[in-house]
Amino acid sequence: MSTEEKIYFTYNQIHNTIQKLSKQIIASGYDPDLIVAIGTGGFIPARIIKTYISKPILTVGLRLYDANNKPKAAPEKIQWIDEVEKKLKGKKILLVDEVDDSRVTLEYCLRELLSDEPAEIAVAVLHNKNKEKRGTIPEEVKQYWAGEELEDKWICYPWDAVDIDKHGL
Amino acid sequence: MSTEEKIYFTYNQIHNTIQKLSKQIIASGYDPDLIVAIGTGGFIPARIIKTYISKPILTVGLRLYDANNKPKAAPEKIQWIDEVEKKLKGKKILLVDEVDDSRVTLEYCLRELLSDEPAEIAVAVLHNKNKEKRGTIPEEVKQYWAGEELEDKWICYPWDAVDIDKHGL
Repeated sequence: MSTEEKIYFTYNQIHNTIQKLSKQIIASGYDPDLIVAIGTGGFIPARIIKTYISKPILTVGLRLYDANNKPKAAPEKIQWIDEVEKKLKGKKILLVDEVDDSRVTLEYCLRELLSDEPAEIAVAVLHNKNKEKRGTIPEEVKQYWAGEELEDKWICYPWDAVDIDKHGL
Repeated sequence: MSTEEKIYFTYNQIHNTIQKLSKQIIASGYDPDLIVAIGTGGFIPARIIKTYISKPILTVGLRLYDANNKPKAAPEKIQWIDEVEKKLKGKKILLVDEVDDSRVTLEYCLRELLSDEPAEIAVAVLHNKNKEKRGTIPEEVKQYWAGEELEDKWICYPWDAVDIDKHGL
């Protein structure tokens, strides 16, 4: 993949996108009880959302690739929420991830979380890639927000930079 | 508290401190099986550490302050690791947090995690405040790293900025 096909984001650009995303959520009137971050990509977006929407964050961890970096048939749970039924049942959830790429992770998480009977569940992603999706958002999910819509390019997040001072240069 | 008593950090400064911290950990020969991030402060430092030390991240969530923003007698668990004994027993853990302030949170987490009989546990914090500590690091913990030693001032992290473009200005 050539350099032109990559998009670089700085931390401050992402912080500003999350601010815009949070304003959309607040403007919609959706008032979640809990934020659920999909790890590890959702950790940083969720932590920044918390600055604007001050709610507790729970995390779920998934592994989508095997040791050879090939996609697994189904995501493997690294961590799930303990006593999950008690914590989510009847609650309004905001599920947060970094990027909506194939939508497989989102669909998997949403279906798992819906089985715990939350009152409502909505999705906020930092970035959505405009591409054909392999996963679908279950129809029980009424609201979906993306901080920014992107073309289907390789996204270089600042937290993955080995040398942050040369990130994108 | 006056402006002079606050210290502001940019995201890139923190990323560089985490890079330095990760190099110290790698140089020590400590090779953890798992990173455990204390939420929500440890989410961003742990995610950046993962760029340098590629291990799965589990999270634990704690609440130290009550609804009136007064310190609670004991930290309240927001989330813990499900099936924690199975996941941590016999493993080498790297516990990560944002700041070692009073040391109460760290001591609480370390004692809880030690009860699950990990093979070894070490601590990495982004910042340590040089002050008298109310908590202590249990003696079973052999290694402790801080990315940077700071005076006892109010730290303003970039992820808490409402307007990131004016952060520290």
